[in-house]
Amino acid sequence: MLLALALSLPVAQADEGMWLPEQLADRAEQLTELGLELPPEQLADPMGQPLGSIVTMGFCSASFVSADGLLATNHHCVSSYLQYLSDEDTDRNTDGHLAADRAGELWVGPGSEVQVVEKISDVTAEVMRGVRTRTSDSKREARIRVNRAKVIAECEADRPNVRCRVAPFYGGQTYRLIEKRRLRDVRMVYAPPESVGSYGGEIDNWMWPRHTGDFALLRAYVAPDGSAAEHAEDNVPYQPRHHLELNAEGVGPGDFVMVAGYPGSTYRFRQARSMRFSRDVRYPFQQALYEELIGILQRHIEGDAAAAAKLPATKGYLDNGSKYVAGMLDGFSGSDVVSRKEASEAALKAWIAADPARVKRYSPVLGELDAMLQADEQRYEAEALASWLVWAGNLLRTAHTGVRWATEQQKPDLEREPRFQDRDKEQLLRRFERMDASLHLPADREVFEVFIDRAAALPSGQDIPGLTTWLEQMGGPEAALDALYTEPDLAGADARKALLDLSLAELEASKDPWIQLALVMEDHLAPLRDRDKVEKGARLRLMPVYYEALKQAQPADTYPDANSTLRITVGQVKGYTPEDGLVALPQTTVAGVAAKAGDWPFDAPERLLQAAPAAPESRWTDESLGDVPANFLTNLDTTGGNSGSATLDAQGRLVGLIFDGNYEAMSADWLFDETMTRSIHVDIRYMLWILEEVEKATWILEELGVAAE
Amino acid sequence: MLLALALSLPVAQADEGMWLPEQLADRAEQLTELGLELPPEQLADPMGQPLGSIVTMGFCSASFVSADGLLATNHHCVSSYLQYLSDEDTDRNTDGHLAADRAGELWVGPGSEVQVVEKISDVTAEVMRGVRTRTSDSKREARIRVNRAKVIAECEADRPNVRCRVAPFYGGQTYRLIEKRRLRDVRMVYAPPESVGSYGGEIDNWMWPRHTGDFALLRAYVAPDGSAAEHAEDNVPYQPRHHLELNAEGVGPGDFVMVAGYPGSTYRFRQARSMRFSRDVRYPFQQALYEELIGILQRHIEGDAAAAAKLPATKGYLDNGSKYVAGMLDGFSGSDVVSRKEASEAALKAWIAADPARVKRYSPVLGELDAMLQADEQRYEAEALASWLVWAGNLLRTAHTGVRWATEQQKPDLEREPRFQDRDKEQLLRRFERMDASLHLPADREVFEVFIDRAAALPSGQDIPGLTTWLEQMGGPEAALDALYTEPDLAGADARKALLDLSLAELEASKDPWIQLALVMEDHLAPLRDRDKVEKGARLRLMPVYYEALKQAQPADTYPDANSTLRITVGQVKGYTPEDGLVALPQTTVAGVAAKAGDWPFDAPERLLQAAPAAPESRWTDESLGDVPANFLTNLDTTGGNSGSATLDAQGRLVGLIFDGNYEAMSADWLFDETMTRSIHVDIRYMLWILEEVEKATWILEELGVAAE
Repeated sequence: MLLALALSLPVAQADEGMWLPEQLADRAEQLTELGLELPPEQLADPMGQPLGSIVTMGFCSASFVSADGLLATNHHCVSSYLQYLSDEDTDRNTDGHLAADRAGELWVGPGSEVQVVEKISDVTAEVMRGVRTRTSDSKREARIRVNRAKVIAECEADRPNVRCRVAPFYGGQTYRLIEKRRLRDVRMVYAPPESVGSYGGEIDNWMWPRHTGDFALLRAYVAPDGSAAEHAEDNVPYQPRHHLELNAEGVGPGDFVMVAGYPGSTYRFRQARSMRFSRDVRYPFQQALYEELIGILQRHIEGDAAAAAKLPATKGYLDNGSKYVAGMLDGFSGSDVVSRKEASEAALKAWIAADPARVKRYSPVLGELDAMLQADEQRYEAEALASWLVWAGNLLRTAHTGVRWATEQQKPDLEREPRFQDRDKEQLLRRFERMDASLHLPADREVFEVFIDRAAALPSGQDIPGLTTWLEQMGGPEAALDALYTEPDLAGADARKALLDLSLAELEASKDPWIQLALVMEDHLAPLRDRDKVEKGARLRLMPVYYEALKQAQPADTYPDANSTLRITVGQVKGYTPEDGLVALPQTTVAGVAAKAGDWPFDAPERLLQAAPAAPESRWTDESLGDVPANFLTNLDTTGGNSGSATLDAQGRLVGLIFDGNYEAMSADWLFDETMTRSIHVDIRYMLWILEEVEKATWILEELGVAAE
Repeated sequence: MLLALALSLPVAQADEGMWLPEQLADRAEQLTELGLELPPEQLADPMGQPLGSIVTMGFCSASFVSADGLLATNHHCVSSYLQYLSDEDTDRNTDGHLAADRAGELWVGPGSEVQVVEKISDVTAEVMRGVRTRTSDSKREARIRVNRAKVIAECEADRPNVRCRVAPFYGGQTYRLIEKRRLRDVRMVYAPPESVGSYGGEIDNWMWPRHTGDFALLRAYVAPDGSAAEHAEDNVPYQPRHHLELNAEGVGPGDFVMVAGYPGSTYRFRQARSMRFSRDVRYPFQQALYEELIGILQRHIEGDAAAAAKLPATKGYLDNGSKYVAGMLDGFSGSDVVSRKEASEAALKAWIAADPARVKRYSPVLGELDAMLQADEQRYEAEALASWLVWAGNLLRTAHTGVRWATEQQKPDLEREPRFQDRDKEQLLRRFERMDASLHLPADREVFEVFIDRAAALPSGQDIPGLTTWLEQMGGPEAALDALYTEPDLAGADARKALLDLSLAELEASKDPWIQLALVMEDHLAPLRDRDKVEKGARLRLMPVYYEALKQAQPADTYPDANSTLRITVGQVKGYTPEDGLVALPQTTVAGVAAKAGDWPFDAPERLLQAAPAAPESRWTDESLGDVPANFLTNLDTTGGNSGSATLDAQGRLVGLIFDGNYEAMSADWLFDETMTRSIHVDIRYMLWILEEVEKATWILEELGVAAE
């Protein structure tokens, strides 16, 4: 419900910066000084090399590493695929998968696709068409929304294998159209066992020193004629325009590195008020919910083999969120990020106050944004709870999606809400189908009950009256839950998919309690969304003026907050000082992997432990370390969504994959601190050593161009 | 009950070694190579410099640092003194104490004394007088015990200010007589607040990086004629023969350092069997008890101001023990100490097996020692519980001491058990008096109940039948506890002290339930002690033969296990690698102290935090660090009892005080590992910076010879 508010422009320092490719051409001198050995303008070309090799999986990044469409990404980015590939007899989540040859490559299931950017263009004028200074907030929001939809529709017209997106930058100051080719037949080539790919589990997550082999190899397939297509037996490997060359020598301390990928979101432009609210209310609220839900899933996983097969991916998602929020809170309390943000905001206000013309133009904007934030804060908990309630129960989420789909169907396609247009149907259907792999009704019910209980405890005026009435009509919460969870139709994939064919009238006539409840919740949520649209319109009016002030007050090279668009960050391999008296070295080794071995989650496989002592004599060893490097640290500026991104050397060659940040890096989503913020990468040499010495995957090494002589 | 068993001789490597002063003369070349700039034979003279400046406080070490008897030791070594100096209005445990001048120096209470070694001589012949090869084990124990008592009695005759001790080395292969001058009027000059002196509390205890100002200053006083005397108003500062010069420049990475002090006990000669038993039974048993007792004391401290004033010292003792045992267990499971010990034992057995003459002489000894150890293991838990029971209840411990005192009084003085001779009476009386400061009956009762309950749960055959009967006679455990804890006479210091004037008959006639229970427990314990004496006699017969084998099998420079006698260890300032990818630097800084500041136990005083930013400009700053060093690491070989020991540079000047070891060092009591074992010291410059910049204690700096110019 609370939208991003940009009130303090980050001034890029040292290695901070999630740069748009096009921005790099302007930074040529700085990049060359840092050690880049490619022409900087080459980095600006999304169709060139290396960017042409980079793809997005939606939640993660990946990159082509062979002419036959082999893709490298993180192990943790393919866990839902491994879950899809598991059944009662085969637990690929635990054991991983090594295809013996191409015929052994396994389709990772419906809905999976990777997308390659083909074109990026500025569409600000098209998006802002018909929007004038005096346009009302409500109309502003609607016009921009419909204009965006039109740009996308034109872009996708008659091109089923192209996906287009209009992304806003600087809070709507500019818009870019991104055209991506969709590759819809993705297959699993190699995933290490969980005891390598997520070695250290939750204990080591976000931690350094790290020893995780967090990588996996996929392959994109296309129709025999080369066109992107649905999965089919006779599909053939995709031939990418570009693929990354490997630098099997790797990188060491001080070496230039860069990461190209799709960082998800950062909050570097938000105001101090938002940061304090997150510290005091939002994150603690989320933390408590995460812990409660994790506890429920954990109990089911421990007590029930069926749950143990279905829930780990969801639990992993919640674990990660929980640790992220805890890290944020630690970062806020253990560093000066909040006071630094406050100081930068005070500087902006002083800059405005220094000139009556500025006061006249900017102060009202600042006041209006602040008032909106305050209003959002007051209703945060109640509205966040309603959103989580609809999200956390898998079947309510499904039914509610159906209700919104039917509602939006009543409008012309381009006027519908994003994610409810005809172009979105295919993805929704696949998500409905995929749900079988993670749906476990007893756990789902317990989770859902948490929200029913919490909603019942909301103070009057903030509560959800329709929900209260409905629960009473059902004979109370217990009876309602019994009705909801007794052989629900929506537990079947076909019933879920059929939802999207029902009209709103048909849904309203349905006796399915999930659909009834979804209608009740939609009655509550629809007016809130309408109000949010007006607010969004206001922000779209205010933010460009605000950025105008910020850019004048702090004239510096800057970059927009992460928004899941392709970015490049540049820096070097570098350790740090976690605290007085301790130095975190920038590299770990295979010997360190072996030294940590023990009980789960440090249950390194026997074949790895047997190979480890000879690692120093292998061809992947690092001379100065005297061992094969396992993971390394860089000062690159990354965040969630960057997972799986290619880590490149000065010549654009692959030297590793980023898979995490250090604990101190979490609060960097709000404010980057070069002394403490580090990205964590798996070293290309660890990947190659595992493929060669642990897995004996000779054919893959050959395809990667590093066959043994 | 289990005595030390020496079955594997440690071969001193690198910086291992708790050397007897006399041994250093033989190591002259090695010491000079390491960087010692004093004539090595100077280190061998306990009356010379620096050893003449070193004193023992019994549980800790200290050293003279001025011609007027000023003593430096650790803050944690004076916590019972600070408790004695606290009352309802003044909490010196929390606030510390700074004497404004000499008149402000406060006597730390009865029973406190420091002792200076004046002479060390070999008395093996005297101790072994009348002991022949065929002397029975029982007689052997008695003769050696009485001979030791005689040597001591002769040494102390007509010298009330001299305390003598006969210490066994290598399990009784040799004995040394140590003559020490007693200084019995000890006063508090300066102790920092707890938030400096034990900064980081239990969280940082045994940890690195460390930022603790663990130091305090005492002064020894004597009668105006210079003779050691009881505390009296007109006593004057003691003029030590020697005192340490300060090196206010301190030491840095790689510099030579040494520590002279009184390490308590190590187990480096014990056999692998004993190590495994400790890992599997002894330490887990102790760990469970520690945790239970700590929980009880913690609850009382939190709930009750009176308890909060009386229990912290006891709880601190238990906390430290608990962490020590936990560290041991972690060390045993996380390193290869057990297997290394086993390998060394196997090598000894192979050496014996290689020669029939050796087999004949040594194998039976080995077998007998092993059988004794096995027997001890089988009764360990029941007997340890009985010992703890008598120890953990303050009033039972008092009453039981009275019973044993009266029993031993029936024998000629020299035939009595150690600690129950006339020479021990004064110390016992003082301990009885001091108990008021820590006795809190509600907590004491709860602690005691734990043991009553555990004793009741002992399996038949291992139980304490007398206790069971007595509890029944008292009307069951609850009624017994009510009787014991309802206004007990022994809660008063006078009643406790009067105990030592009662005969056994008078005690047997007493109606005091504590005395009755003490008699019951003594009936149980006396036969066990008799059996232990026979075992001890057996060990005194076996160990010298065993060492003979060990010294032949592993001919190397060696040193005896720590036994609270004066030792010197040499090495250098040195960091270490706690794990792959992390480096522990050897120094921390005042900036690091400030960075840790926050909630208790990191509640650094405001005046320190205000002074901290200017520390780099103070005269105590270290150029290469750019700040005042707070703590530093060395590879010196130390253990409990070394606390407060002077850390000396190559010229024998004071550069800090050792106060702890790192977590990895705990298992070094069994086996030293130079790569991981580190001692932790407070830097002289941190001490001086605190005195000057935080406390403005100008007169102390003048006395230390470092007055500002």
